[in-house]
Amino acid sequence: MRSRLKLGMVGGGKGAFIGAVHRMAARLDDRYELVAGALSSDAMRAAEGAAEVGIAPERSYADWREMARREGDMRRAGLGGIDVVSVVTPNHLHASVVRAFLAEGIHVICDKPLTTTLADSLALQELARHSGLVCVLTHTYTGYPMVRHARALVEQGLIGELRLVQVEYSQDWWAEGQALTGEGGWREDPAQAGPAGTLGDVGIHAYQLASYVTGCEPEEIAAELHTFGPGRQLDDHVQVMMRYANGARGTLWASQVATGCENALTLRVYGTKAQLRFEQEQPDVLWLTPQGGAAQRLTRGRVSGEAAQQATRIPAGHPEGYIEAFAQLYRDAANLIEGRQIIGRLSDFDDGVMGSRFIEAVLQSHRSNTSWVSLEQLSG
Amino acid sequence: MRSRLKLGMVGGGKGAFIGAVHRMAARLDDRYELVAGALSSDAMRAAEGAAEVGIAPERSYADWREMARREGDMRRAGLGGIDVVSVVTPNHLHASVVRAFLAEGIHVICDKPLTTTLADSLALQELARHSGLVCVLTHTYTGYPMVRHARALVEQGLIGELRLVQVEYSQDWWAEGQALTGEGGWREDPAQAGPAGTLGDVGIHAYQLASYVTGCEPEEIAAELHTFGPGRQLDDHVQVMMRYANGARGTLWASQVATGCENALTLRVYGTKAQLRFEQEQPDVLWLTPQGGAAQRLTRGRVSGEAAQQATRIPAGHPEGYIEAFAQLYRDAANLIEGRQIIGRLSDFDDGVMGSRFIEAVLQSHRSNTSWVSLEQLSG
Amino acid sequence: MRSRLKLGMVGGGKGAFIGAVHRMAARLDDRYELVAGALSSDAMRAAEGAAEVGIAPERSYADWREMARREGDMRRAGLGGIDVVSVVTPNHLHASVVRAFLAEGIHVICDKPLTTTLADSLALQELARHSGLVCVLTHTYTGYPMVRHARALVEQGLIGELRLVQVEYSQDWWAEGQALTGEGGWREDPAQAGPAGTLGDVGIHAYQLASYVTGCEPEEIAAELHTFGPGRQLDDHVQVMMRYANGARGTLWASQVATGCENALTLRVYGTKAQLRFEQEQPDVLWLTPQGGAAQRLTRGRVSGEAAQQATRIPAGHPEGYIEAFAQLYRDAANLIEGRQIIGRLSDFDDGVMGSRFIEAVLQSHRSNTSWVSLEQLSG
Amino acid sequence: MRSRLKLGMVGGGKGAFIGAVHRMAARLDDRYELVAGALSSDAMRAAEGAAEVGIAPERSYADWREMARREGDMRRAGLGGIDVVSVVTPNHLHASVVRAFLAEGIHVICDKPLTTTLADSLALQELARHSGLVCVLTHTYTGYPMVRHARALVEQGLIGELRLVQVEYSQDWWAEGQALTGEGGWREDPAQAGPAGTLGDVGIHAYQLASYVTGCEPEEIAAELHTFGPGRQLDDHVQVMMRYANGARGTLWASQVATGCENALTLRVYGTKAQLRFEQEQPDVLWLTPQGGAAQRLTRGRVSGEAAQQATRIPAGHPEGYIEAFAQLYRDAANLIEGRQIIGRLSDFDDGVMGSRFIEAVLQSHRSNTSWVSLEQLSG
Repeated sequence: MRSRLKLGMVGGGKGAFIGAVHRMAARLDDRYELVAGALSSDAMRAAEGAAEVGIAPERSYADWREMARREGDMRRAGLGGIDVVSVVTPNHLHASVVRAFLAEGIHVICDKPLTTTLADSLALQELARHSGLVCVLTHTYTGYPMVRHARALVEQGLIGELRLVQVEYSQDWWAEGQALTGEGGWREDPAQAGPAGTLGDVGIHAYQLASYVTGCEPEEIAAELHTFGPGRQLDDHVQVMMRYANGARGTLWASQVATGCENALTLRVYGTKAQLRFEQEQPDVLWLTPQGGAAQRLTRGRVSGEAAQQATRIPAGHPEGYIEAFAQLYRDAANLIEGRQIIGRLSDFDDGVMGSRFIEAVLQSHRSNTSWVSLEQLSG
Repeated sequence: MRSRLKLGMVGGGKGAFIGAVHRMAARLDDRYELVAGALSSDAMRAAEGAAEVGIAPERSYADWREMARREGDMRRAGLGGIDVVSVVTPNHLHASVVRAFLAEGIHVICDKPLTTTLADSLALQELARHSGLVCVLTHTYTGYPMVRHARALVEQGLIGELRLVQVEYSQDWWAEGQALTGEGGWREDPAQAGPAGTLGDVGIHAYQLASYVTGCEPEEIAAELHTFGPGRQLDDHVQVMMRYANGARGTLWASQVATGCENALTLRVYGTKAQLRFEQEQPDVLWLTPQGGAAQRLTRGRVSGEAAQQATRIPAGHPEGYIEAFAQLYRDAANLIEGRQIIGRLSDFDDGVMGSRFIEAVLQSHRSNTSWVSLEQLSG
Repeated sequence: MRSRLKLGMVGGGKGAFIGAVHRMAARLDDRYELVAGALSSDAMRAAEGAAEVGIAPERSYADWREMARREGDMRRAGLGGIDVVSVVTPNHLHASVVRAFLAEGIHVICDKPLTTTLADSLALQELARHSGLVCVLTHTYTGYPMVRHARALVEQGLIGELRLVQVEYSQDWWAEGQALTGEGGWREDPAQAGPAGTLGDVGIHAYQLASYVTGCEPEEIAAELHTFGPGRQLDDHVQVMMRYANGARGTLWASQVATGCENALTLRVYGTKAQLRFEQEQPDVLWLTPQGGAAQRLTRGRVSGEAAQQATRIPAGHPEGYIEAFAQLYRDAANLIEGRQIIGRLSDFDDGVMGSRFIEAVLQSHRSNTSWVSLEQLSG
Repeated sequence: MRSRLKLGMVGGGKGAFIGAVHRMAARLDDRYELVAGALSSDAMRAAEGAAEVGIAPERSYADWREMARREGDMRRAGLGGIDVVSVVTPNHLHASVVRAFLAEGIHVICDKPLTTTLADSLALQELARHSGLVCVLTHTYTGYPMVRHARALVEQGLIGELRLVQVEYSQDWWAEGQALTGEGGWREDPAQAGPAGTLGDVGIHAYQLASYVTGCEPEEIAAELHTFGPGRQLDDHVQVMMRYANGARGTLWASQVATGCENALTLRVYGTKAQLRFEQEQPDVLWLTPQGGAAQRLTRGRVSGEAAQQATRIPAGHPEGYIEAFAQLYRDAANLIEGRQIIGRLSDFDDGVMGSRFIEAVLQSHRSNTSWVSLEQLSG
């Protein structure tokens, strides 16, 4: 008979967008059972949220420290403590929460960004390495089958040598300048979000996606942040130039004031032999254009690569989307936790360090009027 | 604390595509708990399938008649018998299975087509009406938010008077002429699939979608079936002309030998004031073109209509797909079963009768060399 | 030094759309010099039109019969009479005008449809054959490089055996029901347009395009006309089913009341090996999808076929359009008149007969309530 | 009777791409008669080219200086000397040729870039201002109706205040690293092309398009050039960041090694109220997305603005392309030369100075490792 992993959650109380997504993702493939949570630091809200998602009252905690301790105890006592925890709090809490659960021997699935400083990310990376536990960072877009396929095509040498990277992530939900309210409000608050606004919210998705597909990072970047929204404390726009070790060049821009954009994450990679293009809003498609040849519309269902095939559930032409991509991360994580092999790469705390280093470099370049900053030379 | 509906399933054993989709759809919004099943008529396969999906051995049945009886008994005895059953067997069994569960007072979610004859569908419609139970027919595509929105726009008079309907559903999975094997093989067997091949498999999806969105059916149709695949017993292509009561005209074609097509269901509706276009492979988008004006790309997240808003889970630009559309049917069904109102229309056994009548009319027109056949005059 | 063909024009006076297009098409490649014309039967308008387009007053005629005679005399006398005439009058005059110029040994470029009856078209076809003159029918869309390429791919066997043809031509300029006024007004008048409205105006473009690309015509058709516009005397919508000799099937529809459509002529052809798709509004692109493979976006500039290459003027990515397609017909005609070979097929009076036969068959099927009508058995 | 302007041409001999385009553009609307030319500095090639395009032998020159002198004399003597000259030589000759013809009182239509240095461009701008002659710079893409419309919408305040500019121009014809041969070969030779490769060939088109539509230029830019092609002397890739006076930000990149790109010039402009997007490869379309609303697909034929309407020839849905856009520049020029008003803005020597200043700034920023360079402070 099927056995499911016991899942806990920190953060993700009533009204929280990303917590609900994590839960749907965990349910889709039926590999997890949500049994414990510290959904809010407010005891009442925590209890209400728990009831709503089917967590028994005795496994609902108002304090994630207590949750880590008690669930750890239950594990050691063979009483069914959680196997894995999903961390979906505001950014500034990630480091402490992750540390607490790793210390109890509990696997971690953490929302991005890993932490708000490079130093913290490096420390967690170190901890993760020594723990032997599965430590996943949910860079959603790497759960799409066609992103997995793009990475595989690059690995197989299909695009030849890398020449150009063009990646962008544009949204418009900050375009009207109003303060965010409700659940997402912490994203405008440096104390909770960290020093990066749009840069940390979506910019690092763009950076991670480019790195995931190309298999490499730039050596140097030159960047500028900007804040359009009056009274806003964090950046809402970032533009970056990139230089790669082999001479390749690139541009990245991310904006949350890009009027008329919903969730427009687009990656284009140009090699000596072919071009790849992926647009998040149409995720079942990957465009491959060999030099001198016709553009080919590769689709999820017609792809023969293993990496893509195993990241899908239904046949060609039956659209899969964001939740399915997210569910793929949970499926991969379940397989790793259960000691199975996975095909393709699941983003982890190395990606967390990579993201933090990128943020650090952009902040530094911005402060020095767009000078080139070496990524390698950045210490924590 | 959350309580979930107790769900049973008939059909959908190992390797069955549509059974797995129903289960994912039921899980996504966490409103159901799958507790019983007759997943196969082969006892061994039924047990294996049950174990795989987490049904306890004592609730796994090899005979759906026994399942209906025993679960009905448990309900009456207050012992937690199922509230609702999903029927995902080959077509020829739908009528008997549905009848058995309705007789036990159990709600029904049945895959399309409802039955293989108009007479059977009419009988079930009658039964459903008198049962007072929730009887859902899973016409997946009506679960898409933008299909709901299209229907709402037509109802609001936005397109004016209906003039033209162009609907098509093209796939290529029978294009190579081979016999289907494995789970889908029954679709080529008249004894299991009924007298309609492509017509019954995808043609009625096209017909139902057009009727769902426009809110009306043609008065008369003229049609032709064709079989390209050598040795195939059922049609693999159908083309139909339609005349509506108000003088509107239409064309429908469906094919499973349309080389190069994945799951290309497209509906275009032209009224005196505006045109609507929906393409299933890009379901988050609905195109609205007012006469003389610019085409407008309406998207799931930017639509203000209630019917669409409540049929979605995540923000604009984060793609939803086929599983989410299917899940919407389950969500609507749960609300109806729990006595809640739903916004928008959920397809039910009336759609089943409509589909059977359409199939009957097409078969009749085809037999008489494409004569016009009146839909109203078709008795069971 | 370059010498240009001497061109005359009948019809195409002030405000006439298609006359102006013919003149731009003739100019683009600089192979013609417009030296004579009977632009209108109204002497004043004829003279004004002639002055506007640079025809000397002594070569401007109010009567095309006189023009044919005098230009013929000049030819025979070696005084520079026209080599070729463009016929751009309302449909009902085509037959007489063409006959008059052929009788004088003058080549003809005639706008479609060739005539308003099958009998007249057959007679002109006969005349053309015996004349030894170049007789072109300007089916514009066959001048597009990617239409030429599509035809070449079919000829080369790339799509395998033909299975399905789906062709449509939708416009909305009659959608609002008003009577046409000004130059285009004759299109609503049976006395000038002939018995076919939308069928003759755009329906035959769709039919001709399908036949041009596939290289074959259906054996039988079943059709229905409809008139939506109140008070309109001719059809504004037509839908047709088609049966081909090899068992292939097809649907054609054309409409000038298709709200929100500009000039949406789309052809899709499905063979046993591949699918082709061409959309007139994006004419530099041809989609080729091999069975089981990725859709390929073939573009004008990346096509290696001769038929397409010689039908283009500028590099890939620099869009060509309708005027260039039209100019291609004039370029081909010039080459034929000058005794050169052309690559690819130029539409001629055989296409005229084909179009007239199609119109006749549709009218006949419509009158007999959509019965199947054999195209071969239609005599003039 | 119609009278046409007398046109001469310098450059554009046999095999030259851009010369042929200028001639087609001049012919399309029949406002010019090509009567003189110095198509090549090689006397034999000049004569051959002239014969091919219908220039009488006595008006074919091997030396453009002589042509300027003799045609100027003919003008003054009332002997039908040319009214206007098209300059389509390699870049390094533009300045001298333009100067010579302006000195003779002859209007000038010059291909871009105006000259190879800012100093030369400023000098020509000055000369143009004092000459009272029409001086056009053929920035083709500003001849597209939908570019004219985009500019008009910005002028009308439709997008609100400018926030972001994203413009790119990618081609792949240098991607394979080979030396260009034949007519285009001079583009790789600094002596003929000037100090800018891709930057001067297509980068300034991107810059000019952005400036044309937004009506403003950045204050500062930071840029980097790169050369991928081995042995190439000039840049084949450029990336630029831009800062505008009002705080707006932007990115520009241009590449001729962007594998798989034909002529992909795309402009996106985001204001506080709306976004505009134009893609050169589909020039009949302009996308307008108001903040919070649906994207609207504006098309050439459905646009009500005067600026677009007068820049088109045929109805909606009948594609126009690159040659038509180029012809619009010639049509506008003819109107100006004949003393008529034009609607919308025709690019002129001010655009030439703007382009040269941009090139100068990029070169300077590149030499100083991507420092910010003020455009205003650049002297000639």
